[in-house]
Amino acid sequence: MLNQSAALDLMFQALADPGRRMMVERLSRGPASVSELAKPMAMSLPAVVQHLQVLEASGLVSTQKVGRVRTCQIEPAALQLAEQWINERRTLWERRLDRLGDFLAETAKPEDTP
Amino acid sequence: MLNQSAALDLMFQALADPGRRMMVERLSRGPASVSELAKPMAMSLPAVVQHLQVLEASGLVSTQKVGRVRTCQIEPAALQLAEQWINERRTLWERRLDRLGDFLAETAKPEDTP
Repeated sequence: MLNQSAALDLMFQALADPGRRMMVERLSRGPASVSELAKPMAMSLPAVVQHLQVLEASGLVSTQKVGRVRTCQIEPAALQLAEQWINERRTLWERRLDRLGDFLAETAKPEDTP
Repeated sequence: MLNQSAALDLMFQALADPGRRMMVERLSRGPASVSELAKPMAMSLPAVVQHLQVLEASGLVSTQKVGRVRTCQIEPAALQLAEQWINERRTLWERRLDRLGDFLAETAKPEDTP
């Protein structure tokens, strides 16, 4: 089990490539075999497999082999972890701006209303 | 102006490093000078500056130099773009699961209620 910081390293790294984001995009519409995943991509099957390995190592995608077919699916809990990290920083900033706004409104009052 | 895919490449790449995430974390609590930003980090000032350049190139952080002091602040709109990309894929997947659940509940009914 990776610690959360190492997990975030791998997830953001995995999402930093347009081809891998395209694969996540496809999988968010439902599971797919490796060849289905490769079909719309402008790259070789080995390149797709390599990107898939990066996604799998990051925990964003899991794969399961049944017979000769490897099926890939998205792992929403991992996506949520990455999303949450960003969301928490953004809302922290927004709450800070809100408090600043409140403070300015408070201190402006005595001058505005004689 | 970068196109959205190139912007996401740079943002996720910027977030894929624990030191840079620590800097975003600090800046989400308010603007800071480069030396304030560097203080809690276990790295040299040039290393901090280099990470800051990656964050600035990604659009996640902006900096402004007044006199001899460069002040850094977070850019919440950029954070939101990255967050939204993940959120849209995750909710797409969840809606798909919900529809699947509804479908299974519907098709199970005739057998369950004689």
